[in-house]
Amino acid sequence: MELIRSLSLPAIGTKLTAEEAMSLAISEAYQGAARVSPNPLVGAVVLDAQGGFLSAGHHEFYGGPHAEVNALKNLSPEQLKGAHAFVTLEPCAHEGKTPSCAKMMAKLPLKKVTFGLIDPNPLVAGQGAEILRQARIEAEVFSSANPVLDAKIKTELEEVCEAFLWNFRKKKVFVSLKMASSLDGQVALRSGESQWITGPESREYVHYIRACHDGILVGKGTIDFDNPSLNIRHPQITKKNKVIVVDGEAELLPNFTKLKLSEVHASEDVIWCVAEELREKVEKLRGTLVKSPDVVYVKTRVGGDLDLEDLLAQLYQKGLRSVMVEGGAFTASSFVSYHLVNRLYMFQAPIIMGSGGSRSWTESVRISAMTDKIQLKNPRYLTFGNDFMITGTL
Amino acid sequence: MELIRSLSLPAIGTKLTAEEAMSLAISEAYQGAARVSPNPLVGAVVLDAQGGFLSAGHHEFYGGPHAEVNALKNLSPEQLKGAHAFVTLEPCAHEGKTPSCAKMMAKLPLKKVTFGLIDPNPLVAGQGAEILRQARIEAEVFSSANPVLDAKIKTELEEVCEAFLWNFRKKKVFVSLKMASSLDGQVALRSGESQWITGPESREYVHYIRACHDGILVGKGTIDFDNPSLNIRHPQITKKNKVIVVDGEAELLPNFTKLKLSEVHASEDVIWCVAEELREKVEKLRGTLVKSPDVVYVKTRVGGDLDLEDLLAQLYQKGLRSVMVEGGAFTASSFVSYHLVNRLYMFQAPIIMGSGGSRSWTESVRISAMTDKIQLKNPRYLTFGNDFMITGTL
Repeated sequence: MELIRSLSLPAIGTKLTAEEAMSLAISEAYQGAARVSPNPLVGAVVLDAQGGFLSAGHHEFYGGPHAEVNALKNLSPEQLKGAHAFVTLEPCAHEGKTPSCAKMMAKLPLKKVTFGLIDPNPLVAGQGAEILRQARIEAEVFSSANPVLDAKIKTELEEVCEAFLWNFRKKKVFVSLKMASSLDGQVALRSGESQWITGPESREYVHYIRACHDGILVGKGTIDFDNPSLNIRHPQITKKNKVIVVDGEAELLPNFTKLKLSEVHASEDVIWCVAEELREKVEKLRGTLVKSPDVVYVKTRVGGDLDLEDLLAQLYQKGLRSVMVEGGAFTASSFVSYHLVNRLYMFQAPIIMGSGGSRSWTESVRISAMTDKIQLKNPRYLTFGNDFMITGTL
Repeated sequence: MELIRSLSLPAIGTKLTAEEAMSLAISEAYQGAARVSPNPLVGAVVLDAQGGFLSAGHHEFYGGPHAEVNALKNLSPEQLKGAHAFVTLEPCAHEGKTPSCAKMMAKLPLKKVTFGLIDPNPLVAGQGAEILRQARIEAEVFSSANPVLDAKIKTELEEVCEAFLWNFRKKKVFVSLKMASSLDGQVALRSGESQWITGPESREYVHYIRACHDGILVGKGTIDFDNPSLNIRHPQITKKNKVIVVDGEAELLPNFTKLKLSEVHASEDVIWCVAEELREKVEKLRGTLVKSPDVVYVKTRVGGDLDLEDLLAQLYQKGLRSVMVEGGAFTASSFVSYHLVNRLYMFQAPIIMGSGGSRSWTESVRISAMTDKIQLKNPRYLTFGNDFMITGTL
């Protein structure tokens, strides 16, 4: 969901096909990235009665006006007579932080509304469309109205709000995995050294991706070796994020106040994940700390590792809707092994580290036949300086 | 040297800058790829006295007319009066398979010749230019005449004939390494299974890269597991190539006639590389074979592995000027470890194989600090279907 997609609006009156209008609405939607979570990214485009471009808008920030409102607000009833609106997601039927978009649109002299996806919430799905129809506005789903169309735009409609769809459909946290590796898939030397594999352009983009998620998750090894801040440092973005540390044995917890993390983040924004068995001991320890992070107690698997599914379920209960896993090798590898990654962001630097003396981000992943390989779906490639990045869903 | 670079010629009379003209000459040069070895790829562009485009040409096939001849052959003396020719490499001074280009050009009413690189052969370097100057034609090296220019075109001028330059400067075989890996750098399962990691678009391009080399080199493991043909199968190319098999202990040699290799290639086009110590034994064995490949006896290193530098030196003596190493993991890894790779062609498929149960193409490569990482220089990225390829020099 989180790729920057540049936006250039056509001149007013430019004729657009349905596909062009919806594609433009998707680009609009992306302009809200890093600002609307846990709401979905949504974009809207309005064409006049002759199919000429009138205006566009997107959901700009959480709690702010929806895409439809932004696209429609500066148009006169005269301009809207017979107009056709394209929205990436079904207009909302209910009042939330803002009034219902479907009801707002129902009062306008629109001829038709085409939306990309039906609202994933089964209780409201189709109600937005129904409100429009009762107002004698045609309401159609894009893929039904354009059945022969390129599969690409359907994928893009899903991708632009993929975390939101996942949250609603599965009631689970959307998990992205970001790795920075060499060409031979290595993420750190055996010594632990890993800074810096990729260049400054890649690293800036990582901060943008961080901002598209509610939390950043790392293993205790990363904290121990790098002592990172794990905040968002991007010239165009100011955003607070949660930090999740997987430290089953609570080894680093006694030193929490000495970590950079505890300086940079409010204590309640740091979530320490510890084995359920240690609850009593850890609660005692917390009483002795000047500052203590939030702690979640997680079931363990045979062998003692935390059960990552339980961990994610608890994060969901705490209100987190998307998490970016930032390694290291052990943590990344575990999430891949248990098939818990929704989207991969794989940065590769044009260097060779040699697998003879370093660690791979899939060290615990094992397949026994090529037919069992894990496929990255809908891959896309971008270059950042001398590095490149591949992203896709797992 | 071997990237396809598409060519689109400007309309006759279009004004070109020196940089545009030389860049076009480079694109022309690439049109001869896979056909001119061991000659260099060379391209030429001619501008009229007003700087307008007149014609372009390239060295099309080994033994055929040089780029300058192809660019100039259809132009009248009237058109050539005051003209300015751009050639990627200094025009040849001597007669070889074709007459001297410098002498041919000296007879024309050209005003100036700009060439990209001085001939790397120290015995002839500058002589082509000298012949032109004696005929009162200005002769200049591109980078001296355009000192403030973008470094990119200088790199491209070297790259377009990189194997030729390496051969001349070092008297060594130019070695490319082609790998097809997963996103996590794995090239085969521990079981040996490796087909097919990349898709058909990548595989077709590999046949094109094969055609840009004199020989394809593999280790005995690849022969044993895959029993490959190792010939060139590309819709636009018909070319015979040499095959080099690294089989230090001559384990597979007794079964040579049963291999697909021996059906597809003439015996003299297959070169078996065996430890020097086995010379006597292997020569006896060859006497008993219905068909036998060519054999080179190679020095061994402590531990018994073949000395790859000696192996490459012997291939050079046999007239090979460029070799593409196609793995598997052991062979690829050895060439990288000993810093014997000039250019890497790394295809990656959007899949994860997991390093827990598979083999990496750098399994024997080890660095102990990030400052020792092996840098890929001038990286370029291309996509092939769902795969991507990165190429650069090591």
